[in-house]
Amino acid sequence: MKLLEEKILKDGQVFPGNILKVDSFLNHQIDVAFLNKMGEEIKRLYADCGVNKILTIEASGIGIACITAQFFDCPVLFAKKTKTKNIASSVYKTQVMSFTHGVQYDVIVSKDFISENDTVLIIDDFLAEGNALLGLIDLCHQAGAKIAGCAIAIEKGFQNGRKKVEEKGVRVESLAIVESMADGTVIFKEQ
Amino acid sequence: MKLLEEKILKDGQVFPGNILKVDSFLNHQIDVAFLNKMGEEIKRLYADCGVNKILTIEASGIGIACITAQFFDCPVLFAKKTKTKNIASSVYKTQVMSFTHGVQYDVIVSKDFISENDTVLIIDDFLAEGNALLGLIDLCHQAGAKIAGCAIAIEKGFQNGRKKVEEKGVRVESLAIVESMADGTVIFKEQ
Repeated sequence: MKLLEEKILKDGQVFPGNILKVDSFLNHQIDVAFLNKMGEEIKRLYADCGVNKILTIEASGIGIACITAQFFDCPVLFAKKTKTKNIASSVYKTQVMSFTHGVQYDVIVSKDFISENDTVLIIDDFLAEGNALLGLIDLCHQAGAKIAGCAIAIEKGFQNGRKKVEEKGVRVESLAIVESMADGTVIFKEQ
Repeated sequence: MKLLEEKILKDGQVFPGNILKVDSFLNHQIDVAFLNKMGEEIKRLYADCGVNKILTIEASGIGIACITAQFFDCPVLFAKKTKTKNIASSVYKTQVMSFTHGVQYDVIVSKDFISENDTVLIIDDFLAEGNALLGLIDLCHQAGAKIAGCAIAIEKGFQNGRKKVEEKGVRVESLAIVESMADGTVIFKEQ
């Protein structure tokens, strides 16, 4: 998505350790008008896939998930990170290792809101090592839900997330794929 | 807001300890179409207040904040909860005690995204003891930002949050005010 690549070049900041900060419009401050353009593009990519639920994970996926859900006319379900030991039996649970924080979370969704009757579109802001997506895919599998695929704002194409997700047989669409960030310059993969 | 009261009566669940679960449409699964109706009502309440930024706190405020921001044509800024000890000097920081989890968080926003040029509308899903709102108000004060007021989906009118926020001179508007939940029946305050 050309518009997103331009936005990243204009407003993103690169820090050592392959860190791309887009907190001016995506994951701290949220440019809701711009998210609408991303949502429209995600709808184009997954039109006619029968999506009836969007699944994301707190916190920074929620904004783009909610805006995008308007184009699909469906609800959002956001998985919750928890360290609570006593998880109710009424939830599906999986583990996710956070790339950013180096911590393992239990991630849960209520069994009330996802089932074999759902066709789920998984949405997140970033794809790097794929840990969050693999966790969300696992939750869908536990629920017996169909997965239309994943829609990601920004993929770090030099990490292994896409490979791991595609090995699960799940489609991945990223609106922008960063090929490299060497010496602070963001290079995108041609799509 | 009559529609929200009806939705709570229809889909909310009351549990011992004055717990009102609305996770089928507000803070786990998110009914985005319904949030649009809430956003429209919030716009009506705060029209002509010069709002140019919506501030909320992760995670469950983000959905309603993003949908509502569309009616104000402004960005959302969501404050982040963190336990990180080394907070950068580039953030405003405050403490918030979580009513739900009994834990104290540091809550931060980047200084890049809030300033004395902003007129902020604070949005959250629940108002009970008011701790989250007081923290967000403190962040606005640190930044020198003006506060148009707070817009809340559901207020627990039998707790002290509103009083504490209004004592700070900040306007509070709640779309539904629960007066009591005795024996599992939700009674709303007339507005």
